Amino acid sequence: MINFQTSPEQYRHWKLSVDGPVANLSMDVQEDATLATGYKLKLNSYDLGVDIELADAVQRLRFEHPEVQVVLITSLKPRIFCAGANIYMLGTSSHAFKVNFCKFTNETRCAIEDDSRHSGRHYVAALNGTASGGGYELAIACDQIYLVDDGNSAVSLPEVPLLGVLPGTGGLTRLVDKRKIRRDRADVFSTLAEGLKGKRAKEWGLIDDYFPTSKFQEAVDAEVAGLIDKTGWKAGSGIKLNPVESVETETGRDYKYVSVKLDREQRYADLTIRGPEANLQSTPEEIQKLGDTYWPLQAYRELDNLLLHLRVNEPETGLVCLRTEGDIDNVLAVDKTLATNQDHWLIREITLNMARVLRRMDLTAKSFFALIEPGSCFAGNLLELALASDRTYMVNDPDAETTIAISELNGGALPMSNGLTRLQSRFQAEPERVGQVLAHEARFDTDAADEAGLITFAPDDLDWEDEIRVAIEERTSLSPDALTGMEASLRFAGPESMDTKIYGRLTAWQNWIFQRPNAVGEKGALTNYGKPTQAQFDFRRT
Amino acid sequence: MINFQTSPEQYRHWKLSVDGPVANLSMDVQEDATLATGYKLKLNSYDLGVDIELADAVQRLRFEHPEVQVVLITSLKPRIFCAGANIYMLGTSSHAFKVNFCKFTNETRCAIEDDSRHSGRHYVAALNGTASGGGYELAIACDQIYLVDDGNSAVSLPEVPLLGVLPGTGGLTRLVDKRKIRRDRADVFSTLAEGLKGKRAKEWGLIDDYFPTSKFQEAVDAEVAGLIDKTGWKAGSGIKLNPVESVETETGRDYKYVSVKLDREQRYADLTIRGPEANLQSTPEEIQKLGDTYWPLQAYRELDNLLLHLRVNEPETGLVCLRTEGDIDNVLAVDKTLATNQDHWLIREITLNMARVLRRMDLTAKSFFALIEPGSCFAGNLLELALASDRTYMVNDPDAETTIAISELNGGALPMSNGLTRLQSRFQAEPERVGQVLAHEARFDTDAADEAGLITFAPDDLDWEDEIRVAIEERTSLSPDALTGMEASLRFAGPESMDTKIYGRLTAWQNWIFQRPNAVGEKGALTNYGKPTQAQFDFRRT
Repeated sequence: MINFQTSPEQYRHWKLSVDGPVANLSMDVQEDATLATGYKLKLNSYDLGVDIELADAVQRLRFEHPEVQVVLITSLKPRIFCAGANIYMLGTSSHAFKVNFCKFTNETRCAIEDDSRHSGRHYVAALNGTASGGGYELAIACDQIYLVDDGNSAVSLPEVPLLGVLPGTGGLTRLVDKRKIRRDRADVFSTLAEGLKGKRAKEWGLIDDYFPTSKFQEAVDAEVAGLIDKTGWKAGSGIKLNPVESVETETGRDYKYVSVKLDREQRYADLTIRGPEANLQSTPEEIQKLGDTYWPLQAYRELDNLLLHLRVNEPETGLVCLRTEGDIDNVLAVDKTLATNQDHWLIREITLNMARVLRRMDLTAKSFFALIEPGSCFAGNLLELALASDRTYMVNDPDAETTIAISELNGGALPMSNGLTRLQSRFQAEPERVGQVLAHEARFDTDAADEAGLITFAPDDLDWEDEIRVAIEERTSLSPDALTGMEASLRFAGPESMDTKIYGRLTAWQNWIFQRPNAVGEKGALTNYGKPTQAQFDFRRT
Repeated sequence: MINFQTSPEQYRHWKLSVDGPVANLSMDVQEDATLATGYKLKLNSYDLGVDIELADAVQRLRFEHPEVQVVLITSLKPRIFCAGANIYMLGTSSHAFKVNFCKFTNETRCAIEDDSRHSGRHYVAALNGTASGGGYELAIACDQIYLVDDGNSAVSLPEVPLLGVLPGTGGLTRLVDKRKIRRDRADVFSTLAEGLKGKRAKEWGLIDDYFPTSKFQEAVDAEVAGLIDKTGWKAGSGIKLNPVESVETETGRDYKYVSVKLDREQRYADLTIRGPEANLQSTPEEIQKLGDTYWPLQAYRELDNLLLHLRVNEPETGLVCLRTEGDIDNVLAVDKTLATNQDHWLIREITLNMARVLRRMDLTAKSFFALIEPGSCFAGNLLELALASDRTYMVNDPDAETTIAISELNGGALPMSNGLTRLQSRFQAEPERVGQVLAHEARFDTDAADEAGLITFAPDDLDWEDEIRVAIEERTSLSPDALTGMEASLRFAGPESMDTKIYGRLTAWQNWIFQRPNAVGEKGALTNYGKPTQAQFDFRRT
């Protein structure tokens, strides 16, 4: 079972140190500290274990070190920054693992950009050696890229020429959409195994600057110093992110606020989220004291951990039935606290984290049905779980009123990857409904929710159990691949962003290529990498 | 060899008749008139041959019948509109053929929408029976959809539940992006094999209206009548589209203005387009007399036919080296004629066709290198060929000046699928260059073209042959699958449209699924459709 939790004391591949406004995040991959067997992590190449540490470091900086203004990413190995995802690991992994590995590494890089965009931290990649493949893709997720000019070091995306696959961590999209490299130059660069060195790389926009070895450290330090806002800086008082605790049972896993029960026979999971307690603290100062036990932080960290667990460790679970338990008033009170204190760093970080977790759900290749029953609390931030689901069932019982409610947070604080709110995404045909729903201060009972278009089905209480049972049976009988492709298409109506292009377009092409004999067949390029045998292609273009 | 040309006299599956402002385009598929063996086209299901006729009819209406205001698409079979792509044909086709089949049918449906959007023709789908899968996808490409209410007829997308693949002709994207169906309802609809009938289908936005059998014809006629602009109508005087003629040789194919020479050993093609003659007619009236022999129409029809031929009949050709021959002044004169007469229906149709052919090139899964040499005429509309290419090489020879030039048509008349011009797409990082280039009235010699960012490389004449030879060798040695995915990612920087989502996101997911054992394996759903055996899935989600 893969564990997605770690902490700096446990890091084996990264060193994280904070010095006033600057954090140094340095890659020093231990060859033998692999997540699986059969490969060595040479040349700062990485596997999922390495990226779990990177994701932890980025997340931790946001909460534990709000004083950090610049994150300097570099390598502790001489002459190599990072060689990208380990090829032998990829070559020996299952298709499903490769896809999930790429998804997680994409989410980590998007999290870096989320931090930069929304929390204003600058990420600087100091390439003290060659950055190839995923190494350059990590650099291109940063705001600035500086390359050493030692006559040898280069940036490169050698996946197409060497491995017959794509740069799978957003590289192609970020080339043309983020750094806006001319498409013909991007074409040349992406087919050039050896990549480009300082001068040409800068001229084409692949890096921001290059410096000779003797002046590299000094020059990078000067660039970093230029990014620091000394007058605005104050020593930080972050909160500690303790490990998320859970109890593993035969049929599931229980966190404090989140539980999952797996029906492995029928291949679905019942996931329940418990809402916040009454009278939670409501000032940033009090919340800072609560730290990571504050419900919106703890519950969403638990949910995040569970989503990752289900993706990788429970691949046969194809459907997640989502329920909530609790008092709607308590959820709305939390949302009010969050909405009215967005200018406080911690409250902003907590909200941004909720948004990221919800996006992780949007991008999870499992079906989600939200089941809204008496005693549930699908309100505000938790209503987003229903809006993120593929379908929503809400019981219609005259004897036990079931309600849902809107809060300020449904209006824009928790956007999808395409930049829309889930309400905007839902009401593409009738955009005026978004405002109407947001202005609706009362709770929605089942009829009102149905009328407002917020739910899919509203079965009678007498039919409820049968209806849900049949819906589960039907869903879990369908082709898991067809569902993945269908959900990826239907969940993202409307505009596309760099993120959705990475997850929707680039990932889908990569998944296709990851199946092709030219990559993974006996004579495929990925299979034969590093072997004395050479790849042999079927040259028919599709 | 598949022939992409046809004409109404040769149609075996469609009837096209024009009655004043209304064209009736009726589907009546002949079961046994298949393009390949091993399947029967029952229930108005289709194969590529059927769609080639549909594409021809749509194209022909635009040129031969400009007087048509409404195209009424219906079926001549009782109780069935269209059952979609033939499953047995798909089940027995190669992966490459399936992918190319879907691409062509997508282009046909996008051509319907192009006609509707730019030429104002209304497309009405009169579903006199069930429209399932590709049948409903054809309907959803139309502007209006009317369904008979006979207690039985439905619209459906049964691909996911019945076949374990996606609706591959834009269905999922058009559900949420064109008809803006709520995503949860789209989810239910796309997993419901039997689909939805009149009342619910209308309520959910899947159709515009439904009428009982006895009143169906009358009601549809009334809707059509309401779309006709009687006062604005006048009898048409279209031009005839004669067959595009070519001579097949051992190593290529020669049209009047387009030639291709295949190097099958090295898997690349040299494609040459000859520019227009001098002093071509310049008034719409004269051009109307020239008809389909007018250069911009004939040359682009030839190019279109050749692109389709290369895609399907020459799959091993992975790289196309594009050259032009002719006088730049003649190209610019043609562009001036086209640009100044956009209010004339024929000139507009000719230009829109050029735009569609260029988009067909953008979407062709082969690499394109434009080679600019002395005697070439990469100007205006032909410069788009260079801008559409993955790379451009322009020779730098002090003794033989080589030039390229801009025309009015580079400013917006020939947009890519994403709505950008190819200049806008090229200069994402420096958008001000677009205006500068467009304002540059002089020709660009090699140095000026390089300076302006219009070419990729400018080799010396002494190095030219070696450089091109090496570039060809390198390109044709790479994995064709990786190149397809890479090009699909790099060619479309910037915004996405419904079209690019269909070709980039939906198609990539479908290609992935078309490779998966759950669809095409021995126990896959597509393989086992209609057999006594049942599909058995590997339920692990990726």
